[in-house]
Amino acid sequence: MRVALVGVGLIGGSVGMAARRRLGAHVVGWNRSPAALEIALRRGAIDEAVASIAEIGTADIAIAGVAVDALPDVVRALCEALPDAVVTDVGSTKGALVEAIEHPNFIGGHPLAGAEATGVAHAREDLFEDATWYLTPRDESAGVLYERLARFIAGLGAVPTAIAPGDHDRLMAAVSHLPHVVANLLVAQASDAVGGEMLPATGPSFRDATRVAGANPPLWGQIYAANRAALATQIDDLVRRLGEVRGLLEAGSADLAVWQEAAAQQRRALLEVGLAGGGGAVREIRAAVPNKPGVVAQIALALGRAGINISDMSLAPEADNRTGVIALWVGAADADRAIGLVAGLGHPADAA
Amino acid sequence: MRVALVGVGLIGGSVGMAARRRLGAHVVGWNRSPAALEIALRRGAIDEAVASIAEIGTADIAIAGVAVDALPDVVRALCEALPDAVVTDVGSTKGALVEAIEHPNFIGGHPLAGAEATGVAHAREDLFEDATWYLTPRDESAGVLYERLARFIAGLGAVPTAIAPGDHDRLMAAVSHLPHVVANLLVAQASDAVGGEMLPATGPSFRDATRVAGANPPLWGQIYAANRAALATQIDDLVRRLGEVRGLLEAGSADLAVWQEAAAQQRRALLEVGLAGGGGAVREIRAAVPNKPGVVAQIALALGRAGINISDMSLAPEADNRTGVIALWVGAADADRAIGLVAGLGHPADAA
Repeated sequence: MRVALVGVGLIGGSVGMAARRRLGAHVVGWNRSPAALEIALRRGAIDEAVASIAEIGTADIAIAGVAVDALPDVVRALCEALPDAVVTDVGSTKGALVEAIEHPNFIGGHPLAGAEATGVAHAREDLFEDATWYLTPRDESAGVLYERLARFIAGLGAVPTAIAPGDHDRLMAAVSHLPHVVANLLVAQASDAVGGEMLPATGPSFRDATRVAGANPPLWGQIYAANRAALATQIDDLVRRLGEVRGLLEAGSADLAVWQEAAAQQRRALLEVGLAGGGGAVREIRAAVPNKPGVVAQIALALGRAGINISDMSLAPEADNRTGVIALWVGAADADRAIGLVAGLGHPADAA
Repeated sequence: MRVALVGVGLIGGSVGMAARRRLGAHVVGWNRSPAALEIALRRGAIDEAVASIAEIGTADIAIAGVAVDALPDVVRALCEALPDAVVTDVGSTKGALVEAIEHPNFIGGHPLAGAEATGVAHAREDLFEDATWYLTPRDESAGVLYERLARFIAGLGAVPTAIAPGDHDRLMAAVSHLPHVVANLLVAQASDAVGGEMLPATGPSFRDATRVAGANPPLWGQIYAANRAALATQIDDLVRRLGEVRGLLEAGSADLAVWQEAAAQQRRALLEVGLAGGGGAVREIRAAVPNKPGVVAQIALALGRAGINISDMSLAPEADNRTGVIALWVGAADADRAIGLVAGLGHPADAA
């Protein structure tokens, strides 16, 4: 397997290390800064450095690990230079990029890992261990390309999870970008409250709530800007909710306690959901599917929406080449639900 | 030393344990629920249980550790029943209570410890180790009472820090109550974003940012309500700042990165300040002061505002009983600044 890496920073470098050591891949890298390429070679993140995308030659998988601003150009160049590759990226927003790229070989990606440190010097083989890695297949995505990419990502140690670009960006705005914005604002208000003079004696709750304030300014400036529409919607929603709390403050402590209890329940539900799905026994399910683009994407998205992880998948065309069988490995507890969902999409499915 | 405890929950019970074991105090306790009194006796949080405040007899220090709603009545009853005691509380807001209590023997208090668990079953002797314990002395506070209370609190292992009630409530609204409100709202928005269906794959940043969401609903309902004015001001301020961020989103990633960097600097400044002052060498400074109410409060507040911890203090009246000497132990690095501040208040001061 040949892997092309454009951008060998923390994420790209870690992909290279994991691909070489866990999957035995041959990794070819290019980077705008030759110094980073040198480090990547020395640290074993790539086998071979090239001077341009054109020199990569061929690849099965091509990964754009560059800054969000540079992604459209790099992804387009990879799609054109490597017609046999499935091309993906690792940017933290997906809607704008997926809309900008028309090439059918591009499937957007976003691993939830490594937002703190940067640079290939911090790259490590196990960065993606058990991390969710979102993928945004589209109707025109060929099943074989999605399968290749998903298996590659699972081979890096991550959990590939299909999601629609809009859902991804709304989710990230809610669970990541808005919390980062709020952390910055809490720090700013606390600074004003202490007037730069008085020692703030704050408990661990303030430290936790503001841990990400000011994280990696160049990176986060790009993330906010790239997801500005979804983030603005979340900001407006937060302003509306703050207005409701202001009303509750007048209502007295009993109503406020009820509101607090509702938050406790929501948090429990969110975290119980968030903690489910890792590890445990898997079961194989099989479905007969038409051999055409979009079917695998449709199934992966439906299972992703239902919170069902696909830990592995395999596509096998029938002799007529018009139909095929897709095998999916999912958590044993999710198998019956997965069979129902796949059957609901019109594909006869059963446990293997 | 006799200590009266009204309310033997987590905080009251921990005060009792630390006072008995570290200071050899005799602790008399009363609690609305007799069951909690039983546990307090069994766990060694009190020496003696009484059936009413009237039965306490005498005390040097009286602590109201009851719910915020019940504080005014309990504090008033303690001031009347125990005329020789310095009376304090452990409530998390100070403005309304200090305004409601006219008795000169009351000095408000708030230890920054133990908001997670509740009940005397979780009480422990070391709960206050190195915790800031805010005190709100007033102009009419007698120096000997403030000294007695501050030394008692230092003896429990905490760091007594004088603060004006309004400053306290504004600070707590900014660094504690608003972060709790925001944590609840982030959880609510994330719940909506995942629609109860889709698994939220969230990194540690979301868990950290929402760790306190829904904490202890009855307690937090009372805290929000008790500090409603200061909290409403902080909410309005957050809404204004969210509007500014919305404007920044249109400006592009460079401006957003600058904003992010400003937050990074503010957080560093806040945490460096917050981490300073603990441990290290102390130096004694002495000042000649008039022997009248309010002087010790004035000095303690001035040093508290400047972020200077007073690790111990001692008051000695001169023979004329109209002047006295106050000895203060502060961090060696803060000593010169402390001398300047005390001298600036009109009290000749010097290193001992």
